[in-house]
Amino acid sequence: MTLSVYLAGEIHTDWREQITGACAGLDIAFSGPVTDHAASDDCGVAILGAEADKFWHDHKGAKLNAVRTRRAIAGADVVVVRFGEQYKQWNAAFDAGFAAALGKSLIVLHGPDHAHALKEVDAAALAVAATPAQVAEVLRYVMTGELPR
Amino acid sequence: MTLSVYLAGEIHTDWREQITGACAGLDIAFSGPVTDHAASDDCGVAILGAEADKFWHDHKGAKLNAVRTRRAIAGADVVVVRFGEQYKQWNAAFDAGFAAALGKSLIVLHGPDHAHALKEVDAAALAVAATPAQVAEVLRYVMTGELPR
Amino acid sequence: MTLSVYLAGEIHTDWREQITGACAGLDIAFSGPVTDHAASDDCGVAILGAEADKFWHDHKGAKLNAVRTRRAIAGADVVVVRFGEQYKQWNAAFDAGFAAALGKSLIVLHGPDHAHALKEVDAAALAVAATPAQVAEVLRYVMTGELPR
Amino acid sequence: MTLSVYLAGEIHTDWREQITGACAGLDIAFSGPVTDHAASDDCGVAILGAEADKFWHDHKGAKLNAVRTRRAIAGADVVVVRFGEQYKQWNAAFDAGFAAALGKSLIVLHGPDHAHALKEVDAAALAVAATPAQVAEVLRYVMTGELPR
Amino acid sequence: MTLSVYLAGEIHTDWREQITGACAGLDIAFSGPVTDHAASDDCGVAILGAEADKFWHDHKGAKLNAVRTRRAIAGADVVVVRFGEQYKQWNAAFDAGFAAALGKSLIVLHGPDHAHALKEVDAAALAVAATPAQVAEVLRYVMTGELPR
Amino acid sequence: MTLSVYLAGEIHTDWREQITGACAGLDIAFSGPVTDHAASDDCGVAILGAEADKFWHDHKGAKLNAVRTRRAIAGADVVVVRFGEQYKQWNAAFDAGFAAALGKSLIVLHGPDHAHALKEVDAAALAVAATPAQVAEVLRYVMTGELPR
Amino acid sequence: MTLSVYLAGEIHTDWREQITGACAGLDIAFSGPVTDHAASDDCGVAILGAEADKFWHDHKGAKLNAVRTRRAIAGADVVVVRFGEQYKQWNAAFDAGFAAALGKSLIVLHGPDHAHALKEVDAAALAVAATPAQVAEVLRYVMTGELPR
Amino acid sequence: MTLSVYLAGEIHTDWREQITGACAGLDIAFSGPVTDHAASDDCGVAILGAEADKFWHDHKGAKLNAVRTRRAIAGADVVVVRFGEQYKQWNAAFDAGFAAALGKSLIVLHGPDHAHALKEVDAAALAVAATPAQVAEVLRYVMTGELPR
Repeated sequence: MTLSVYLAGEIHTDWREQITGACAGLDIAFSGPVTDHAASDDCGVAILGAEADKFWHDHKGAKLNAVRTRRAIAGADVVVVRFGEQYKQWNAAFDAGFAAALGKSLIVLHGPDHAHALKEVDAAALAVAATPAQVAEVLRYVMTGELPR
Repeated sequence: MTLSVYLAGEIHTDWREQITGACAGLDIAFSGPVTDHAASDDCGVAILGAEADKFWHDHKGAKLNAVRTRRAIAGADVVVVRFGEQYKQWNAAFDAGFAAALGKSLIVLHGPDHAHALKEVDAAALAVAATPAQVAEVLRYVMTGELPR
Repeated sequence: MTLSVYLAGEIHTDWREQITGACAGLDIAFSGPVTDHAASDDCGVAILGAEADKFWHDHKGAKLNAVRTRRAIAGADVVVVRFGEQYKQWNAAFDAGFAAALGKSLIVLHGPDHAHALKEVDAAALAVAATPAQVAEVLRYVMTGELPR
Repeated sequence: MTLSVYLAGEIHTDWREQITGACAGLDIAFSGPVTDHAASDDCGVAILGAEADKFWHDHKGAKLNAVRTRRAIAGADVVVVRFGEQYKQWNAAFDAGFAAALGKSLIVLHGPDHAHALKEVDAAALAVAATPAQVAEVLRYVMTGELPR
Repeated sequence: MTLSVYLAGEIHTDWREQITGACAGLDIAFSGPVTDHAASDDCGVAILGAEADKFWHDHKGAKLNAVRTRRAIAGADVVVVRFGEQYKQWNAAFDAGFAAALGKSLIVLHGPDHAHALKEVDAAALAVAATPAQVAEVLRYVMTGELPR
Repeated sequence: MTLSVYLAGEIHTDWREQITGACAGLDIAFSGPVTDHAASDDCGVAILGAEADKFWHDHKGAKLNAVRTRRAIAGADVVVVRFGEQYKQWNAAFDAGFAAALGKSLIVLHGPDHAHALKEVDAAALAVAATPAQVAEVLRYVMTGELPR
Repeated sequence: MTLSVYLAGEIHTDWREQITGACAGLDIAFSGPVTDHAASDDCGVAILGAEADKFWHDHKGAKLNAVRTRRAIAGADVVVVRFGEQYKQWNAAFDAGFAAALGKSLIVLHGPDHAHALKEVDAAALAVAATPAQVAEVLRYVMTGELPR
Repeated sequence: MTLSVYLAGEIHTDWREQITGACAGLDIAFSGPVTDHAASDDCGVAILGAEADKFWHDHKGAKLNAVRTRRAIAGADVVVVRFGEQYKQWNAAFDAGFAAALGKSLIVLHGPDHAHALKEVDAAALAVAATPAQVAEVLRYVMTGELPR
């Protein structure tokens, strides 16, 4: 039984590769958003035509990305949401809320500095991890019942 | 037919009062989170017993608040989410994602500075307003079909 | 037990008044879209600010109207959809599809000229009526079990 | 993860072939209605017996076709709805409404002349395209994150 | 908290009146189908126009009645289905299956002669009663916790 | 895309074999109830222990069979329900109601003598067939768009 | 907005009265199972006829009680589950699982001795209380935002 | 069509192996919780960091295990719940309630001594078995229609 895991949130570090690498050999199907920041921002106008107004430029792109993310979250068993050190990252919190409302198992990944600000998100999660390695160990345990040595 | 409207997000200004005041006379039932910041932060330990660890102190409180917010969002026809000028406000974005996944009509309220960072949230909304007065006008139009003069 | 009936579609004749008038005395709560054509077309920009591009002008208005129509359809027991003699009326067919997917009881109201073009919509309906009077008689029978004399 | 895409609407041009051709090599499973117009109109009576009344002739056919279309829409991740230059095309708008109510990602395909009449349908969509090539580029981006060069 | 009870099935004896009479004083809202046999059979053609073919005569009537019964079953907490001594009564079994799939509490009412033929229906029920008086006692117990003396 | 078809109802003739034979070569997964009448009646007590009371004997068996039928109906795209010439066949009508409430495409198969008694079941169906050959032709058309020659 | 609270579990102490008394004046509608132990055990046979076999005696009663409890849990916003000092109380844990799967806000009430054995139940809860007074304070906070003085 | 069966409850005897062994050759995909008691108890702190307080130690572990069990139950067609001779086993009853609310086919496995205490759980089940061999025979019958010789 393949486990479907969606990796949401921060796109500026290699945390996704750390997790997928550490889970090599497990029957897990990982998915995630488009992580090419420029493509993600401009996809709407690049495909469907330019917009004079920046708001609609962003709007068209955000909706195209939603075709990918909504489906991947809807099809996931587990949604991991990573909050990095910088930026507002409201889309990460939005994805967490979306996943929680659908009853997905939520794993939140962030450093201790964000704990108070993320308390409502953490309260909806089944695990709060501090490192990508911990997330990988959680997934390994869920699949195999084995604890890290 | 009463319209149920949940007012989520920022709790440091009087935007809720502006909206409810401007909607006087309409058949709208407004709800919102506990807006007493101190009570909201400490409710868990104040009622269910102290915690040595700040994480669990926050956790117990966030869960108690969720009893109120989950039900109010679930029972709402419209969810208005306000993003203020300060703070991370990840709980606001979480509520927006939660409401979107439940198919609620979402109205986002924020200033133009936040437009790019909130593009994914705005893309899920049926209206993006810049002021509480606009939100009230939207609600009045929805209820009566009348535009502002 | 109040019956909730949403009256969708054509807004240029008095068919809604004919039905509600003929149903006087029955425990039915009728709802419908904003039928002031100008207000319906311009509500988005009138409240949330002007748009240079006609597409986005229309888009903002259509979304505001959706706050009203989605909720009314979701809360309805019966959705009546009227197709008039003129115009594309794609929003009427869209509402019919939306209502059908939610499992609402669908009543379609149109003249015989449209029968072939509406066959897929009619196939999803529990009644196909030719006049507002017939719709009212259907609703009276559903509520009271009495047939017209 | 295969993407399921249902291609609804206009059946008189080769737009479906244009999209599926341009998506060659992508892991997409396309489906669509029966596009043989005569078969689609007459299937009910051809299989289940003749009807004297044209209404029931159409009715039996529309219901048989619904066995195919309801299931394909229900199983789709993305529903593309094409509005051509001619005919009423109420079944296309009905399919769009049906798909929207089920939470499917909706892509609408039409020329600029129809923009005002389709504003309610477009408002429910995640993308509004003007050409089959744009739809294919959207699907390619959703699957690969690559923009057209 | 009012209990909604739908009384489905046999329409030739006064079993509904026996139950509602014995439940006088309880906060129960009873509903049921149209029990005027002639009106129920002919409602479709009486309102929406005559049919030459008996099949479509019946079809139009059955669909009109479904407007009433589907909504009443959907809104019920408890569905009581009565099987009488005569007739096929497939609509009663259909209503029982419909109610079971919606998770309604099902009470089946029939004499011992039908026990074997109704075993699949009974297996989906929370109570199998032999008399209307037993059904009333079940409803009284559910509402008050009191057993018959 | 495999079509899942559940064949419910009458178990005394070879109608299932006629349909599956005529559909050879199509990508259809057929399922059905246990058609060994004796095994179906006695499975409960044969596996879980004898019952002194015939009602509970039947009850245990009906519930075991429900493990199979509920799952098969829930997983089906299309449910075909056959009513034969004899017996009460209330379980067939129950299955039809169950399938209808789950939004399955329903095909009813019966001779003309049963038309009036089955009008409520037929009203919920997308096709009413008189012979197994017609059901097979419907399924072939749904899968291929080809009409019988 | 009335809060619906179902009080599940232990029926040998006055904990329900403590909570409802302490919540006097709040807009809360409390419900619960039949707490007359003898009536609850014997209701099935008392109303629907005696059973020779104790298993079926219990079975008929448990199903009658389910008519009441399933509906009350389904209609509740909050489900409080009390585990006392004695007995297996598997029905309490069953109700907790049932409520959790329906997405109800769960409050578990038990002494510290049961903490380890109830860890899976507590993990699904939004609050774990040790006394009825704490439950009442949670409900008061949820309704009013006020903390105990 | 593979049958998905989740084996919940007691983890101290080899009942799972007895069932899976006796079902060799059938197209059944079995799943279950982590049955290494020590790993199951300590997984939370072993992966996500130690806790000073036993309650939170247990809490973190129970939530990690829920990632596995919730998904497996949600994906199961049949949930078998075993109650052993010892311990509180509230998690087993919780899983049974969770499965029942999701409409899963429930099979309960316990000895006669527990019959009265488990009557509410048994009342929600489609089969109550006394031995693992009986469960295997039920599954074989469901898959093949064959009774044990």
